[in-house]
Amino acid sequence: MHPAFEAELATINGELVQITRLVGSAMNRATQALLDADLTLAETVIAADAQIDTLASDIEERCFHLIAASTPAEDDLRVLIGGLRIATSLERMGDLADHVAKQARLRYPRPSVPQELRGTFAEMGGLAEAIVSKTGSVIALQDVALTADIARHDAQVDALHRELFTIVMSPTWPHGVEAAIDVTLLSRYYERYADHAVSVTRRVVTIVTGVPYVGVSLDDPR
Amino acid sequence: MHPAFEAELATINGELVQITRLVGSAMNRATQALLDADLTLAETVIAADAQIDTLASDIEERCFHLIAASTPAEDDLRVLIGGLRIATSLERMGDLADHVAKQARLRYPRPSVPQELRGTFAEMGGLAEAIVSKTGSVIALQDVALTADIARHDAQVDALHRELFTIVMSPTWPHGVEAAIDVTLLSRYYERYADHAVSVTRRVVTIVTGVPYVGVSLDDPR
Repeated sequence: MHPAFEAELATINGELVQITRLVGSAMNRATQALLDADLTLAETVIAADAQIDTLASDIEERCFHLIAASTPAEDDLRVLIGGLRIATSLERMGDLADHVAKQARLRYPRPSVPQELRGTFAEMGGLAEAIVSKTGSVIALQDVALTADIARHDAQVDALHRELFTIVMSPTWPHGVEAAIDVTLLSRYYERYADHAVSVTRRVVTIVTGVPYVGVSLDDPR
Repeated sequence: MHPAFEAELATINGELVQITRLVGSAMNRATQALLDADLTLAETVIAADAQIDTLASDIEERCFHLIAASTPAEDDLRVLIGGLRIATSLERMGDLADHVAKQARLRYPRPSVPQELRGTFAEMGGLAEAIVSKTGSVIALQDVALTADIARHDAQVDALHRELFTIVMSPTWPHGVEAAIDVTLLSRYYERYADHAVSVTRRVVTIVTGVPYVGVSLDDPR
């Protein structure tokens, strides 16, 4: 591999890892803003989303130009096309953190989440953090073994998501329609965030193993 | 351009147009199944989603192998990378039609949508149909002028989506939490479906004009 090509690949990889940190930090702060009804913190997440979008576009352009300029071998091409698709998924994870923050802002100064569900959302936030941090390691080290952990965390997020559905739809739900919809949408944002992380790790597996990506939907309607 | 390369590009383009027809038909039937509480029709949409997934994967692989095999010029590379990303968005539109059908199935034999909101969902279904049909023409003919129509339809879908939020959150909403959540999620599926179509047309504009895609989020949390 040409040294300049290798250096550029390393730059792209480093930028992808950097975005995992940014979208991880965004979701952490969004969760905190949600739980504490902290408007200032919510605003920092919303303001930072543009930086994530720009970085993702930048990676996509780098991948494109490297393909155009270097006639990469098939393996390298798989890395580069995988890279631009991973950038897209990470950018979407940033949007979902932004959605959580906007939900916190929408209901401020009231909390968006009833007291008795704070623990569940804190748990979802913790799982999101674990997932994105391991996703960063998968990208940095191509450590495919971590994908099993990520899939397990994703299943935990799915279980919490279903549990929240059961709670808000129960006949004894005391908080009314607005709170039920808030909880449903918030829960869905965490669930989709985790799905996108899983899809990123599948792209890395594709790159490492050369087996084509299978676009199985991770997303159930509920 | 080499004739074999040109023929392969035409095949990919034809397959992308074919997927727009499939996801258009899927959303049409899903809307009908929703409005009529028609379980059989819902099941046909759910069963057909795998075919859309397969076709999208097939296009992605074709694009990949054509890039690997042909050292395309920068313009052609933009077409091919755009093509595989368009395939991904269309595949996601198929998932969203599948979600609508699954919602119809979940509540069968009851309707998922209260009588007085049937007209709104019929309208959303009609807009989705117009959007995806024009998206097919944008891909087939690279007719960028149609993107203005699509953006206008998308704005209409967004307006209906916001209107539904207002209705289900109103203090006089008579149908309870479950129906409110059903309506919210269904409405969001149409809204996301339209967003993905807009994003497809932006990719085509990128290809035609050579101006890089700007990943502005189309999606508001509500």
